[in-house]
Amino acid sequence: MIINLISDTVTKPTKGMLDAMMSAKVGDDVFGMDPTVNALQEKVAKLFGMEAALFFPSGTMANQTAIKLHTQPGDLVICDKYAHIYNYESGGVAFNSGVTCKLVDGYRGMFTANQIEEMAAVQPQIYLPYTKLICIENTTNKGGGACWDFSEIEKIQKVAKKNNLNFHLDGARLFNALVAKNETPTQYGALFDTISICFSKGLGAPIGSILLGSKENIHKALRLRKLLGGGMRQVGFLAAAVNYALDNHVERLAKDHKKAKEIATVLATCNYITKIEPVETNILIFYVDEKIGADNFISKMKAKNILLTPMGEGKIRITTHLDYTDAMHEVLLKELKNF
Amino acid sequence: MIINLISDTVTKPTKGMLDAMMSAKVGDDVFGMDPTVNALQEKVAKLFGMEAALFFPSGTMANQTAIKLHTQPGDLVICDKYAHIYNYESGGVAFNSGVTCKLVDGYRGMFTANQIEEMAAVQPQIYLPYTKLICIENTTNKGGGACWDFSEIEKIQKVAKKNNLNFHLDGARLFNALVAKNETPTQYGALFDTISICFSKGLGAPIGSILLGSKENIHKALRLRKLLGGGMRQVGFLAAAVNYALDNHVERLAKDHKKAKEIATVLATCNYITKIEPVETNILIFYVDEKIGADNFISKMKAKNILLTPMGEGKIRITTHLDYTDAMHEVLLKELKNF
Amino acid sequence: MIINLISDTVTKPTKGMLDAMMSAKVGDDVFGMDPTVNALQEKVAKLFGMEAALFFPSGTMANQTAIKLHTQPGDLVICDKYAHIYNYESGGVAFNSGVTCKLVDGYRGMFTANQIEEMAAVQPQIYLPYTKLICIENTTNKGGGACWDFSEIEKIQKVAKKNNLNFHLDGARLFNALVAKNETPTQYGALFDTISICFSKGLGAPIGSILLGSKENIHKALRLRKLLGGGMRQVGFLAAAVNYALDNHVERLAKDHKKAKEIATVLATCNYITKIEPVETNILIFYVDEKIGADNFISKMKAKNILLTPMGEGKIRITTHLDYTDAMHEVLLKELKNF
Amino acid sequence: MIINLISDTVTKPTKGMLDAMMSAKVGDDVFGMDPTVNALQEKVAKLFGMEAALFFPSGTMANQTAIKLHTQPGDLVICDKYAHIYNYESGGVAFNSGVTCKLVDGYRGMFTANQIEEMAAVQPQIYLPYTKLICIENTTNKGGGACWDFSEIEKIQKVAKKNNLNFHLDGARLFNALVAKNETPTQYGALFDTISICFSKGLGAPIGSILLGSKENIHKALRLRKLLGGGMRQVGFLAAAVNYALDNHVERLAKDHKKAKEIATVLATCNYITKIEPVETNILIFYVDEKIGADNFISKMKAKNILLTPMGEGKIRITTHLDYTDAMHEVLLKELKNF
Repeated sequence: MIINLISDTVTKPTKGMLDAMMSAKVGDDVFGMDPTVNALQEKVAKLFGMEAALFFPSGTMANQTAIKLHTQPGDLVICDKYAHIYNYESGGVAFNSGVTCKLVDGYRGMFTANQIEEMAAVQPQIYLPYTKLICIENTTNKGGGACWDFSEIEKIQKVAKKNNLNFHLDGARLFNALVAKNETPTQYGALFDTISICFSKGLGAPIGSILLGSKENIHKALRLRKLLGGGMRQVGFLAAAVNYALDNHVERLAKDHKKAKEIATVLATCNYITKIEPVETNILIFYVDEKIGADNFISKMKAKNILLTPMGEGKIRITTHLDYTDAMHEVLLKELKNF
Repeated sequence: MIINLISDTVTKPTKGMLDAMMSAKVGDDVFGMDPTVNALQEKVAKLFGMEAALFFPSGTMANQTAIKLHTQPGDLVICDKYAHIYNYESGGVAFNSGVTCKLVDGYRGMFTANQIEEMAAVQPQIYLPYTKLICIENTTNKGGGACWDFSEIEKIQKVAKKNNLNFHLDGARLFNALVAKNETPTQYGALFDTISICFSKGLGAPIGSILLGSKENIHKALRLRKLLGGGMRQVGFLAAAVNYALDNHVERLAKDHKKAKEIATVLATCNYITKIEPVETNILIFYVDEKIGADNFISKMKAKNILLTPMGEGKIRITTHLDYTDAMHEVLLKELKNF
Repeated sequence: MIINLISDTVTKPTKGMLDAMMSAKVGDDVFGMDPTVNALQEKVAKLFGMEAALFFPSGTMANQTAIKLHTQPGDLVICDKYAHIYNYESGGVAFNSGVTCKLVDGYRGMFTANQIEEMAAVQPQIYLPYTKLICIENTTNKGGGACWDFSEIEKIQKVAKKNNLNFHLDGARLFNALVAKNETPTQYGALFDTISICFSKGLGAPIGSILLGSKENIHKALRLRKLLGGGMRQVGFLAAAVNYALDNHVERLAKDHKKAKEIATVLATCNYITKIEPVETNILIFYVDEKIGADNFISKMKAKNILLTPMGEGKIRITTHLDYTDAMHEVLLKELKNF
Repeated sequence: MIINLISDTVTKPTKGMLDAMMSAKVGDDVFGMDPTVNALQEKVAKLFGMEAALFFPSGTMANQTAIKLHTQPGDLVICDKYAHIYNYESGGVAFNSGVTCKLVDGYRGMFTANQIEEMAAVQPQIYLPYTKLICIENTTNKGGGACWDFSEIEKIQKVAKKNNLNFHLDGARLFNALVAKNETPTQYGALFDTISICFSKGLGAPIGSILLGSKENIHKALRLRKLLGGGMRQVGFLAAAVNYALDNHVERLAKDHKKAKEIATVLATCNYITKIEPVETNILIFYVDEKIGADNFISKMKAKNILLTPMGEGKIRITTHLDYTDAMHEVLLKELKNF
């Protein structure tokens, strides 16, 4: 038994999801003729109260398309220094869009409206990149699954609108936040110009993200998806899995969160642990003491078939998910206690 | 019954292919842990006698990645004026790679080594784009499924190597050429630096293309795929379908070719047809007389549930494929005769 | 005495021009505080009846900025296969703007409205580059200094406007056309969205081009010039030379044209000449017979201190200009006769 | 009398410089035939002990070319959060090169080798931008003319080389540092892969920057300069001014530094001043109290014909230079005392 905690992307479809995939009605989605994709897009748009939705092969492509939608080469996007778009999308913001990131020095990937008020109001000067977009990520990956305070998001949205800036949500793990904070999709749909949602993370679908926005923006996104090479054919098989995840895997995220907190509780009793970051969802970041060392700790756990992720600067990340069973949980807790 | 002849991309998986998909062993391909993808990549590389292979969500992304691999912004790629990369990839050569196309005035999408000898030998000058790549497409889409003469490809390869240019094959429909001309994958693998193969066209897989090349190039391609947003998770479901297609759908392409020729034979007897381009594979391009007009002809056929594609300049395209049954064939031939 | 006919860019300022430079009032143009630049920009805008003008360090940067102004990455510009922007700007259209060129198969760099009517009307499809701009060059460099028929330009402008396309004139040698065809700047100003004019060619200024357009476009151009690194400081010295050229060197272009025609007349009598292209302005393109060969001819002339330009495909180019004196003319004609 | 302290770029050529310009021997630099440019490039390369040099119309273009030289789209450059390339080049790093900036949280635009050791050593991962370049600026503009400690630069160079990173110096005001710290050009030439030097700042030339590097890099830079539109014709007029500046205006920078320190001494006695940053060269940054406010202070000084620059966040910048005379200095000091 391998206990794979490196990411919530490693999950495999359940029997029910596989059945849904197998019985999907499909068509050529490049021609807009896949009924399962069309229905899914409509369903997710409705769920968030937004005009339109578009299926993508990855969350990275959904985010990169959104950034390209809202900017031109030479523009600037405001985001946290921990933002996934800045740190983990291969430099795509500059590669695909020719755009510069202005980094905010936030807390666990989250900043306040106050922190960006001045930079959002900078007037265009020919020697500056032009600010066009504010982007936030909820929950924050590099921030350890932290959830934004919704009222702060509302304030940031006001700053964006006051300065004619677009507002994009990287919602790779938004459903974790919704469940953890008891929020609704429409609350978010009302605030953002575009939202990307990933379904191959905690929700357990094999492949697929959705970008939400106005009809006009999603029409433009369709073109950009083609340019980036994301136009696929009989996508309904993937969309059916996403649809199943939406119907069956949202509420159960609470279980992943509970397990992550239980791991933190155990770690808090271990004398080799020097720090544990607050646990709000399914991600847990902690530090081991210098005698052990992060890389060494990860190696030793790997020898026990437990896979963890190094995050740099001594951080270790655990991610709980659908395929992390109760049995695995017991083993992990025991191994951590006895390390 | 709708007879959909707009493209060979519209096919849906057969029962056998669906079974293969649903029983696939999968893993997180972003971490290189999907066994079905890994096996497929190895199999296709071996089939072509090339070092390595990489799965892509689309043929466009495989081609765009190859062009980026072989060039830097400001470079030039030599291709036919009918080339798919120039005409039908949304301007991606310039968008993704900052590269200019030098178009050769070929015949049905194919040119000769003689035609490019001088342009391939142009020496770098600071005021010129730098020539780095020759790209050909086999079969040619806009050229009506035409197959290149293999000895001409060999001559072009010599021109490429003599001038230190890379050589890429857009093999979206290469298997159609292999079957039509009785050629082997290794013949092609020996000549090109990179080859893209699409499996969601005549071969009938729902999604997926493969890029072939040296280990070094495919390692770079992995990075570029991530940059473009083509890194996906449990891809094994799609790879299993591709694998099934390779095992079961190659030889049967001859049937599609036979039907396309039979359609041409019937059209040759119709007095409203002004020209039929030579039919070598599964694509047939023809012209109707001015009294009828291409758009009108397509509309009238659509009213009979027969879908055809306008190609501009009065051309009409028919594409035969796996889902175009004998029964449909009979209906189509009758409708064409009686139009 | 070196007779340098490789380009009309090789001229050096006359005494009068140098005096004008020397006495120029200057300021920091990045802050818009150079009075000589400001006055020149206003003067040229007025001369063409256009709203605004901007000084550039080169014609290439003026053209590249115009293309960026009118397009977004992934777009398409229609131009002749001989166009300078496509052939001689280092691949900048793709590098700077991510834009594809659609080449028209014109005559000596010039095409007709009929030739582009269909391509200009192509509707946006997600798989096509989006057509946004038509660009023509007058006189044509690679076309041998050919001048467009003004009524044809008017027809092309109608095609552009009918299809909501912008229309740019690469007027590197526009003043040669104006003088040769007895046309006025305002005729051109009325038809184009942007016009670039180069002053360091036939007009004899050391450095400088001007881009003309609407106030809005020129404001955007100011920003793009900064992005490309074309923001310079005390530019008035260069602007003073341009201003002098405008006042003193326009009408005399007729002399360069006359000399070019006289050279053609002599060449027509030489039995080693196989073809001379029509001479309309200051550029002359001709071919020598195979016994001599273009490269050899150029080498032998160089040995006589006469510098000519090879244009590829056996073409040789002579360009007359301000520094090509009557004495040089006599020598050249004699050498050509006696070759 | 207008006392313009907004930048050291506002200076106008002296009589001696103007004479040098007007007697310059010139040629067409696009063909490499301008003797004054060629001699200057050789002289500056020699001065720094580097292989080759290239003249540019602006420091921005020299920097942008260097960044493009050392990177490919998707790469990352490490620089200070105050870096000119990040803040004041219009977003050009992303626009021209598709490159991301990794910002170091330095002190007045300067960081330590320790601060970047970990980030410089990050190994390529497909989801990260690839680190290729470290760039520093000396003196720092946004840092108030601060000079780097040379031994720290040596340590950073070691970090760069250890990790196979290139090392670029934005030396827009390097001569101010050389004079202030009594350093030599060859000390710098020995450490960097490329260095840009601006001559239209403190050195008083009207236009022109130089990029220094290996022969190979400068050959590539020539091409990139053409791509960006920086290829100019009779550049010798500008090069002659630069040459004059090198011969006559270097040592006198000490006077500008002295004046800046004298202004600081006076400001230190003014009760409306809340903070003055250390003054090392010709830039002085200070803050006024809230009762006055930065914008208001600048307006009131402007009414007295004294021009200052707002730097954001309440900062005000004064820059001394060649055209800031002793008489102006007296007036300014009096006005500051009596404000």
